[in-house]
Amino acid sequence: MKIVIDVMSGDNAPEELIKGVFAAHEDYPHVDMIMTGNKYIIEDYCREADLDLKTPGISIVHTESVITMEDPALSVVRDKADSSMGKGLKMLSAGEADAMVSAGNTGALHAGSTLVVRRIKGIGRSAIATILPLETPMLLIDAGANTEVTKEQLLQFAIMGSIYMNKLFGIDRPRVGLANNGTEATKGTKLLQEVYAYLSECEDINFIGNIEGKQIPFSECDVLVCDGFTGNMILKLTEGLAKFFMGKVKQVFMRNPATKAAGLVMKPQIKEFKKEFDASEYGGAPLLGISKPVVKAHGSSDAVAVKNAIRQTIDFVNTGIIKELARRVTKKEESENE
Amino acid sequence: MKIVIDVMSGDNAPEELIKGVFAAHEDYPHVDMIMTGNKYIIEDYCREADLDLKTPGISIVHTESVITMEDPALSVVRDKADSSMGKGLKMLSAGEADAMVSAGNTGALHAGSTLVVRRIKGIGRSAIATILPLETPMLLIDAGANTEVTKEQLLQFAIMGSIYMNKLFGIDRPRVGLANNGTEATKGTKLLQEVYAYLSECEDINFIGNIEGKQIPFSECDVLVCDGFTGNMILKLTEGLAKFFMGKVKQVFMRNPATKAAGLVMKPQIKEFKKEFDASEYGGAPLLGISKPVVKAHGSSDAVAVKNAIRQTIDFVNTGIIKELARRVTKKEESENE
Repeated sequence: MKIVIDVMSGDNAPEELIKGVFAAHEDYPHVDMIMTGNKYIIEDYCREADLDLKTPGISIVHTESVITMEDPALSVVRDKADSSMGKGLKMLSAGEADAMVSAGNTGALHAGSTLVVRRIKGIGRSAIATILPLETPMLLIDAGANTEVTKEQLLQFAIMGSIYMNKLFGIDRPRVGLANNGTEATKGTKLLQEVYAYLSECEDINFIGNIEGKQIPFSECDVLVCDGFTGNMILKLTEGLAKFFMGKVKQVFMRNPATKAAGLVMKPQIKEFKKEFDASEYGGAPLLGISKPVVKAHGSSDAVAVKNAIRQTIDFVNTGIIKELARRVTKKEESENE
Repeated sequence: MKIVIDVMSGDNAPEELIKGVFAAHEDYPHVDMIMTGNKYIIEDYCREADLDLKTPGISIVHTESVITMEDPALSVVRDKADSSMGKGLKMLSAGEADAMVSAGNTGALHAGSTLVVRRIKGIGRSAIATILPLETPMLLIDAGANTEVTKEQLLQFAIMGSIYMNKLFGIDRPRVGLANNGTEATKGTKLLQEVYAYLSECEDINFIGNIEGKQIPFSECDVLVCDGFTGNMILKLTEGLAKFFMGKVKQVFMRNPATKAAGLVMKPQIKEFKKEFDASEYGGAPLLGISKPVVKAHGSSDAVAVKNAIRQTIDFVNTGIIKELARRVTKKEESENE
């Protein structure tokens, strides 16, 4: 298996990306890791960090430009088609790699995956699927790729999310919930009311109904379906509130000598607690619906998060999710045409 | 001043509602409190709780029916027009009271306020405005009344929210943010892109741009404008995550004897910390845009929360927000017709 990693994108690129690649290679020595990026910068860093670029199975494909967070999404197929991200996608499309990981500009990665690697035949829109690390892992789909969607697309998100949670987390008949402003079938926008009826009729998935905001943290479903606008709000607000509460907990321990002493006792527990809600423990976010595995690592990924994203990408390839997705979509189309 | 309180609605009705009325009356002896509800039940409870119904300034208007959380919103003007909520709204409309408080069915209260009390002339839609108790108090408008809205309505929400935060919290030129999936002007749905441009041009408000989910907890604005679907998601998810994190913090302290001891030290701090995020400290949620003050108390309000909601309702009446709202809307219409 060959995995291409865009080591120039992300808040901590290239250092943490490169370290993550070497760490992943230690765990998976039989997987080839191809780094796209500026070879002079990569070589300099590896020398400095004492990482051996002659390690069998690790290689560099030299690229000059880098897509920044400010670049428009379509730059990946236009002026920056030869960037570390653009080149990686081209290699994936050409069969020179089996999967790709990037911590870069999400819009560009989504646009590039769609235009260069292309969607699975029959899939209307690909979506970003993210694990929310709450009571139990819950897959949020779409976490931000498509601001506006149709009911058919939302149904496909539900099917793709179900297959992913079944294959990667071993959940039998994953419970699918629809993010809405109330539990009753009549809640939400006109589109969501239609989607509720549509999902209820679909035998392919285990639809359990609407999920309200207050239910989300308690993982009352395994797959939470929504448009990318709502998904972005849920994901970012959860991240923001986790950061906010952690900061507040810290403040509470700083109040006086007694609380500071209590804080010392609690330090290992708090650390463990923090780790529980660390999304990067689960790896990155797959772009479901793309014909080959593309995984978006969090922008702020450190080496451990990058390693986890690579591990997850290897699982993504090994479990044959994309083949299963293609089969289910084709089957659904056939049954609808009967 | 006369305030009508629907004491039959809410999770803890009538006990906590009645207790809240008596507590508020102690703080504001010159405000008349009129309770709508079943007088036999109220009398029974007051006897049991040793509350004197002969207290000057406290009275009952007898009603038979109660609107439940399951009743359709329009029941308040149809089969349950004479319920504790419906009767209160009629009294407000007829000038028999100056303001109303209810902890009942939000949809019914919103529909009833619109149809019985009516909106301020020129206001397209009234909205529920809720304080999110985060870094500093931030007003979320619309917190759930209108699932789908127009750009003109969102602008009115921004104006109403600004006046409310100025008059009730003394904030000079409140910062208005638009809830969106990114900070750039080009982010969000087509509607939100139009709203961004529209709010930018409006001199009446201090628009500071888009606010992403991760910024929300840090109160980067004073008024957060959104449609009621998004507002419901933000409010409910924040409530759910606060509950979730508090539960996790409790678990962390239960791990072993040392952490339990630390927990004892931290108890007063944790209690204070919890209080900081208690929305009911700020009272209830005003229905902005209605021609008379209507305040929705949280469904789970206890006596203290009810008392706070009544205090806030008194401020709402005293600060003349509605008059100012009407003046600004009329002024805006005139300047647009010039």
